[in-house]
Amino acid sequence: MSLLVVGSIAYDTIETPTARVEDSLGGSALYFSAAASLFTPVNVVGVVGSDFDASKISFLKKRGVNFDGLYMESGKTFRWGGRYFDDMNKRETLFTYLNVFERFQPVIPEHYQKAEFVFLANIDPELQLEVLKQIENPKLIVLDTMNFWISGKRKKLEEVLAYTDIIVLNDEEVREITGENGLIKAARAIPQMGPKSVIVKKGEHGAMLYHEEEFFFVPAFPLENVVDPTGAGDSFAGGFMGFLAKAQTLDLPTLKKAIVYGSTIASFNVEDFSFKRLEKIKMKEIKERVKLFKKMTAF
Amino acid sequence: MSLLVVGSIAYDTIETPTARVEDSLGGSALYFSAAASLFTPVNVVGVVGSDFDASKISFLKKRGVNFDGLYMESGKTFRWGGRYFDDMNKRETLFTYLNVFERFQPVIPEHYQKAEFVFLANIDPELQLEVLKQIENPKLIVLDTMNFWISGKRKKLEEVLAYTDIIVLNDEEVREITGENGLIKAARAIPQMGPKSVIVKKGEHGAMLYHEEEFFFVPAFPLENVVDPTGAGDSFAGGFMGFLAKAQTLDLPTLKKAIVYGSTIASFNVEDFSFKRLEKIKMKEIKERVKLFKKMTAF
Repeated sequence: MSLLVVGSIAYDTIETPTARVEDSLGGSALYFSAAASLFTPVNVVGVVGSDFDASKISFLKKRGVNFDGLYMESGKTFRWGGRYFDDMNKRETLFTYLNVFERFQPVIPEHYQKAEFVFLANIDPELQLEVLKQIENPKLIVLDTMNFWISGKRKKLEEVLAYTDIIVLNDEEVREITGENGLIKAARAIPQMGPKSVIVKKGEHGAMLYHEEEFFFVPAFPLENVVDPTGAGDSFAGGFMGFLAKAQTLDLPTLKKAIVYGSTIASFNVEDFSFKRLEKIKMKEIKERVKLFKKMTAF
Repeated sequence: MSLLVVGSIAYDTIETPTARVEDSLGGSALYFSAAASLFTPVNVVGVVGSDFDASKISFLKKRGVNFDGLYMESGKTFRWGGRYFDDMNKRETLFTYLNVFERFQPVIPEHYQKAEFVFLANIDPELQLEVLKQIENPKLIVLDTMNFWISGKRKKLEEVLAYTDIIVLNDEEVREITGENGLIKAARAIPQMGPKSVIVKKGEHGAMLYHEEEFFFVPAFPLENVVDPTGAGDSFAGGFMGFLAKAQTLDLPTLKKAIVYGSTIASFNVEDFSFKRLEKIKMKEIKERVKLFKKMTAF
């Protein structure tokens, strides 16, 4: 049951073609938790600065997110700025201020160390390794990473991959990490690197699972107006792992359903900035959209 | 039942990262027929030069493809040369010699004029209009086109669109024809232009149908080794329309199945050059792959 996430807590400045928000609450650990906590309690490990407004995460605490592993350091909270363009399909980073994240050394509270389900969000592979050393006997380790670490810390990343069960990457990342241009070849090359399974996030084209020589595909929910794509990948991962941790099964039918739930929650997340949509979401709405996914793919 | 296709018959010169073929039989009308004739008889209208080797289409004649509308003119058959790269995901045109196609004026044989199902392959919209004038009372008109006509013959293309029931486009084309960058917005903008439905071909990301406010998605069959993508779109359209013409129904469940059959046949087509794969294909193989499509999308 116990689900642990180690990742960032951030204030984001986001520009879209029609809006701009400043110091909007975000970060991989929070987007993950907002999604996963719809299914199961979540334990968070992360760091914030003394400027952090803890009142903004009270909705997560109410939903069963435990912040005993949230460390407050003197200095400022991590800040990221990005701009979306081309109908939200592309983004550029405007700035990254690591702030307190720069000296972050994840210490896993003792009562978190028996975590069965672990999500290593996109952080330095050296920190991901530090986390793994502190977990006693995990049942499922899911990993996210990015081009920056794939090219910059390849060796350390390979060490993490050896422990990883499922890696979640976008299409560019899976091409880069494997050196294969075709998505199918790339997916098939992953198991040699460690993870038994890979999920490829393809943005507006949905997601693909490769698991024990089987493929599964789910489209992206057809949304006309994406307000803010920030956190789509992490809320997907949160929905996916929250569903699995609740189901306590890792067979293919359960993995498939978990991916559909992850896609569904991600599709809600991008309908508004920050946690505006996930804060008030109801399980009834999620289940209705899962039904629509079925209707749009069954034949 | 009666299915008519008007399109090109070509000799293709194709370069891939690992192979090169010269004067390989191809063209939209033939790829369409090779797929559609697996379900129902097909009537072809097109033109070839005096260099055309008719023995190479005998496998289509045996399968019920009627070539009474194939005109032989003095001069050379249409020739196209293309090069695929980036793991077959991209292509560039090396040359286009219209030859006898340059003076082509489609004349629909009298016994073709009662065609109920009409596929207007990607040719000059002026010729597509000429075809439509000669058809008595079609039940379903499906249209393909390309960027060259979207930008170069917009007015004429709009006239064709007014008569079209379903337009089949790739993702770039649907963005260009509607001026919308997002695929969902673009699909939703199509009905205002005439066609009730649109199928967006997304290459390695599969295909999407938008029909009466409903979406349907099918992935591309996961192939590790695509030998030659030429004719994928036309064999998709052929499988799609052949299935519909046989089913004689145009409701959403039938359209969905037709798209899966189209995707399946296209996935076989790209496994070899020219018609090598579709020439010997068995319905049993097709049905097995359709089952795999179901397995890869059902949850």
